[in-house]
Amino acid sequence: MQIIHTPLEMQECAMGLKRAGKVIGFVPTMGFLHEGHLSLMRIAREQCDVLVVSIFVNPTQFGPNEDLDAYPRDFKRDEALCREAKVDFLFYPEPTNMYADNASVWVEEESLSSVLCGASRPGHFRGVCTVVAKLFNLVQPDLAVFGEKDAQQLRIIERMVRDLNFPVEIVRGPIVRESDGLAMSSRNKYLSPEQRKNAICLRKALDAATRMFRKGEHNVEPIRSVMEEMISAVPEVRIDYIEFVDEQTLCMVNRIDRPVLVAIAVRVGSTRLIDNGVLGSMSGAHKVAVKNAL
Amino acid sequence: MQIIHTPLEMQECAMGLKRAGKVIGFVPTMGFLHEGHLSLMRIAREQCDVLVVSIFVNPTQFGPNEDLDAYPRDFKRDEALCREAKVDFLFYPEPTNMYADNASVWVEEESLSSVLCGASRPGHFRGVCTVVAKLFNLVQPDLAVFGEKDAQQLRIIERMVRDLNFPVEIVRGPIVRESDGLAMSSRNKYLSPEQRKNAICLRKALDAATRMFRKGEHNVEPIRSVMEEMISAVPEVRIDYIEFVDEQTLCMVNRIDRPVLVAIAVRVGSTRLIDNGVLGSMSGAHKVAVKNAL
Repeated sequence: MQIIHTPLEMQECAMGLKRAGKVIGFVPTMGFLHEGHLSLMRIAREQCDVLVVSIFVNPTQFGPNEDLDAYPRDFKRDEALCREAKVDFLFYPEPTNMYADNASVWVEEESLSSVLCGASRPGHFRGVCTVVAKLFNLVQPDLAVFGEKDAQQLRIIERMVRDLNFPVEIVRGPIVRESDGLAMSSRNKYLSPEQRKNAICLRKALDAATRMFRKGEHNVEPIRSVMEEMISAVPEVRIDYIEFVDEQTLCMVNRIDRPVLVAIAVRVGSTRLIDNGVLGSMSGAHKVAVKNAL
Repeated sequence: MQIIHTPLEMQECAMGLKRAGKVIGFVPTMGFLHEGHLSLMRIAREQCDVLVVSIFVNPTQFGPNEDLDAYPRDFKRDEALCREAKVDFLFYPEPTNMYADNASVWVEEESLSSVLCGASRPGHFRGVCTVVAKLFNLVQPDLAVFGEKDAQQLRIIERMVRDLNFPVEIVRGPIVRESDGLAMSSRNKYLSPEQRKNAICLRKALDAATRMFRKGEHNVEPIRSVMEEMISAVPEVRIDYIEFVDEQTLCMVNRIDRPVLVAIAVRVGSTRLIDNGVLGSMSGAHKVAVKNAL
């Protein structure tokens, strides 16, 4: 595994790989890797000749009051995990090399970004789109794997690839969960043991929604009420949103008459956690299971 | 020469050329080609294995009251000129194939775009940046040639390439002029014979500025006054702006103590014309002349 520190080196390396006819797979991360990231790497690894992983805690996607400086980092551990995952190139740039002082060009998604997490994190997805566009241009991937846990981010990146014609296939990686159902996240480490136990209410509420839907409840409100009640009953957990949106357009729906994304964001103490599932169609996890079974 | 009508075909073709190790040169245009465009093609032709030209009257860079529908078009003539210029691929997409109905991702430059033409054409450079980003992703050029006549556009594209890390070298093509000094433009055809004669006042004013600067006048205001006076005296010509800005940052300057772009925009009747030159350094034309002489 080769570690690359500068954008220029990364791009020259990628251009050489392209000329050599290699299929480049890419997993962009903010580091502090967990099993969720590793699952994305395994998905990419299977479909490419050369696997590139980036670790970059992107400052432009953090708001002024968000946890940029506190965001957990452990490069030595990440490096070892990438080696185990048979990563070929680990791109680990400095922020000063990624953004000029007078940087003035931004990639902005103006429809999907206005709801869900975008509503409470202005500028977040602009930072995400911009850095992903930059990384695509530096890494030149044929395919890039993004996790379904960040459901809105995934749809926005898919939209960006479509609207700006990036020659990149976006592959959806299913949510990876702890044994009790908590979706893996670098932010889970902020939770106290008590909060950690309480945090499984997100998955429990999603499971309840799935059960109700399967029993024939296709209206959103009764399902949302049950979810709200379940989560509100848990100490230290405050709901930011529980939304039912069209799986593609992220427009609000009242009935589940098409694939609908159920997205939850809460605060557990001061830690923001998100989770989601899709009703009305095979979930990504099921799709992958089916695909692997074929 | 092969004519390509769809974005998908263009991208597949480009990816194949990249794998084959070809150096791709690119000249994006809005068609109605003139000697200015052809000069850009010659510059690209010298530096690449495969020359791609696009003809696309990009709707997103026209304002609601601008001349999108009236913009001059003559594909058959353009096609013949491209053949003569030894273009390998002519990309000629339909607007409906370039933009989805619900397109929502835009590339925006937020510093250089606010002055000069950007001030009077809100959204124009957003449309330009977005379509150029799309074209870069579709054509995969190693180098792209942009004309110095559109001085602000050129700087904004250079900035976009830097800030989004496009693996594309931007080559500046010097302004090509009619024998009497009028900068070539597809919009010149809108001019009546009388207006056509009057329009050379732009070049005359720029020449006056150069003479004053060479004689030692390094303050902007005396030069601007002379230019204003010269242009104002010409019938049917109304000044939109005469600006002196830093050649790189497009920030206004009062003294010419570094390379300074002198940019003019006027209306001749209802036709908007622009022209420019650089004081305080070799102009692009000089640079190319020197380079060709080496």
